[in-house]
Amino acid sequence: MTFDIKLAAAQAKAAKNAIANLSQAQRLALLLSVAKGLRENVEPILAANKVDLDNAKESGLSDAMIDRLALNADGVEAIAKAVEEIAHQPEVLGSINNIQPLPSGIQVGKMRIPLGVIAMIYESRPNVTIDAAALCLKAGNAVILRGGKEAQASNKALASVLHSALEAQGLPAAIATVIPVPDREVMQEMLTLSESIDLIIPRGGEGLIRYVSTNSQIPVIQHFKGVCHLFIDKDADLDKAIPILENGKTQRTGVCNALETLLVHVDVATQAMPKVAALFDEKGVKVHACERAIGYLSNAEFATKEDWEAEYLALEIAVKIVDDFDTAVTHIQEYGSGHTEVIVTENLASSQRFMREVNSSVIMLNASSRFSDGGQLGLGAEIGISTSKLHAYGPMGAQQLTTEKFVVYGDGHIRV
Amino acid sequence: MTFDIKLAAAQAKAAKNAIANLSQAQRLALLLSVAKGLRENVEPILAANKVDLDNAKESGLSDAMIDRLALNADGVEAIAKAVEEIAHQPEVLGSINNIQPLPSGIQVGKMRIPLGVIAMIYESRPNVTIDAAALCLKAGNAVILRGGKEAQASNKALASVLHSALEAQGLPAAIATVIPVPDREVMQEMLTLSESIDLIIPRGGEGLIRYVSTNSQIPVIQHFKGVCHLFIDKDADLDKAIPILENGKTQRTGVCNALETLLVHVDVATQAMPKVAALFDEKGVKVHACERAIGYLSNAEFATKEDWEAEYLALEIAVKIVDDFDTAVTHIQEYGSGHTEVIVTENLASSQRFMREVNSSVIMLNASSRFSDGGQLGLGAEIGISTSKLHAYGPMGAQQLTTEKFVVYGDGHIRV
Repeated sequence: MTFDIKLAAAQAKAAKNAIANLSQAQRLALLLSVAKGLRENVEPILAANKVDLDNAKESGLSDAMIDRLALNADGVEAIAKAVEEIAHQPEVLGSINNIQPLPSGIQVGKMRIPLGVIAMIYESRPNVTIDAAALCLKAGNAVILRGGKEAQASNKALASVLHSALEAQGLPAAIATVIPVPDREVMQEMLTLSESIDLIIPRGGEGLIRYVSTNSQIPVIQHFKGVCHLFIDKDADLDKAIPILENGKTQRTGVCNALETLLVHVDVATQAMPKVAALFDEKGVKVHACERAIGYLSNAEFATKEDWEAEYLALEIAVKIVDDFDTAVTHIQEYGSGHTEVIVTENLASSQRFMREVNSSVIMLNASSRFSDGGQLGLGAEIGISTSKLHAYGPMGAQQLTTEKFVVYGDGHIRV
Repeated sequence: MTFDIKLAAAQAKAAKNAIANLSQAQRLALLLSVAKGLRENVEPILAANKVDLDNAKESGLSDAMIDRLALNADGVEAIAKAVEEIAHQPEVLGSINNIQPLPSGIQVGKMRIPLGVIAMIYESRPNVTIDAAALCLKAGNAVILRGGKEAQASNKALASVLHSALEAQGLPAAIATVIPVPDREVMQEMLTLSESIDLIIPRGGEGLIRYVSTNSQIPVIQHFKGVCHLFIDKDADLDKAIPILENGKTQRTGVCNALETLLVHVDVATQAMPKVAALFDEKGVKVHACERAIGYLSNAEFATKEDWEAEYLALEIAVKIVDDFDTAVTHIQEYGSGHTEVIVTENLASSQRFMREVNSSVIMLNASSRFSDGGQLGLGAEIGISTSKLHAYGPMGAQQLTTEKFVVYGDGHIRV
């Protein structure tokens, strides 16, 4: 008895107007009801999570995976708080921008509207189930959630919180569908349902994202890895550069906005590299260095092509001394993943060229790559960081789950 | 000897920075040089077009196809003028919107940047070759053009104008690639080249668009058919409704913003339908009508499900009398193609509900569906009208061929 995803997607499509046309007050009530439901159901949620954890241990999942899977009472409270924050964010729907009178006499503007039905494909973390649902609902979309097999029981418990909240507001359960048995066949079929589903967002390992992108007949917004670069320019202030390097590489290593490659302009190498080396020694950062950089560093290995492409997600970094600004930009264009790149410089022309010519989703001048997330960039909660250029590039909040239609006001106008 | 599309796409990718980083003055010079080249090469272009026309007649292409294929001196002049207009449009790149200081002290804005490499797949009209290239170049993108086999010689002549202009500006020819032999295998392989190509825009018949959407591993913006509706509400002013119906159905029938279905509120049917019938008689419009409407009309046939879905592109229309506002909206949601819908009403609440609840790409109040194109809506020249909700919905001009990246200004800021 496999899950009928085609039927579920058709039901989501049929339900999408119900969520799209809620008033602000109704949508607020719905999201607050989800938060309340989470708090009232801590016990069943944790009990379900324990089932997943026991299964995970039995089947020998890695400690890192188990860590991502585990919930406790504080964790559930944090999820509830996140839903409340999303609930209280400014409204994203219905605004009409930039109404202009045109020569024909009509007036034209653009109104922000939901996308329709969004399907989210993700792995172990159960909090994504609620975060993603809350952001989709905030933006007026129906949502289909396909979490990992290892979080199946937790997701089922969270789904029942979502459904109770929808029911309490008199809304169809199909607005938020949690796929109960996340087998591969269901996902494969889901990727073909372009009549019902408007957008697929895969989050997880590179393999999953490539699989979805290659096989989907529905638009996909990819959230690939972050191979983030810091370029210390010849005119860098090292009192800014070294803390930005430390913050980017060592504050949290397992996140996509951590630094993975350091590029140092050759003209500043003799001043910068001893400070860089001291920082890496102090923090225990493993280094893969180019021929010119390796002499400055203790215990560094020669960097290979794989290092320039690596997302270490660990206390590990690739370091290269470059001859000039252009070489730095070319290196980033060749090996960057379109996520976040940083320049440290006091030179106005270099800063302007970097901001203009490097087309990753977030470009920073004299600021840490760690600012590259929705909350830090002023978007509120995020559903992920898009490295796809289409539709949304960079951190995606509720607004990036909407689109705009043209609205035209006439008074009997016809075209001549 | 088939065309090496993989190599061509890699070369386009390598050339994309050259077009992205041009100054405004350089991009203007490039586009004006294309317009000049067109005017200086009218003779070879028309000679090439004659080759295509002779082949078309020999292979028995329909008169409509031949008509779309044919160029004359005035046609070439019109294409050159269109390029000049695009050249003189306001700059779309490099603007930084909405810079905001955030609590951490960083300042965040969004800068408009090119998408990269855009591939356009289209059919007979050779003017699309130049229009699409000019819009892509205006937006700083490299472009790959895959026109129809039947326009092969014309497109080759137009390609040589593009390449001369690029060469005159010292730019690589790979910025604008015209695929010389547009066989199916080349298109199939092109749809897999997601490493090099950022966006595919198919324009043409529904079959082509479905084929591309189903098989592409690259994001696709679809330009499907226009099944545009006019809803004459119970509170419609018929002095506005009838001219809007006439304009939408009869001004030009072969275009995607022509009306295909008329919905009439039952409360206004006895007043409206005789006027509607008189208009259709006068203009010779063939009618497919519901049971209640058919009595008002001479020579109408009963409408079937196919009629509600039809894009006639002819003096032909489907007509339905509906019981209420909600039935009209439900009909549009079920049968509309996401293109353009019109309400004629003097009722404020109905107008607001229609604008809010009908999520096609262009929604009109008391104005003709014929206004639904880039020029009429204030965008300038358009590359098509997207019925995909992702990235761009509705008419697409140069700006819709760009995206935005985040730009962050700090002064040594790190995350705490």
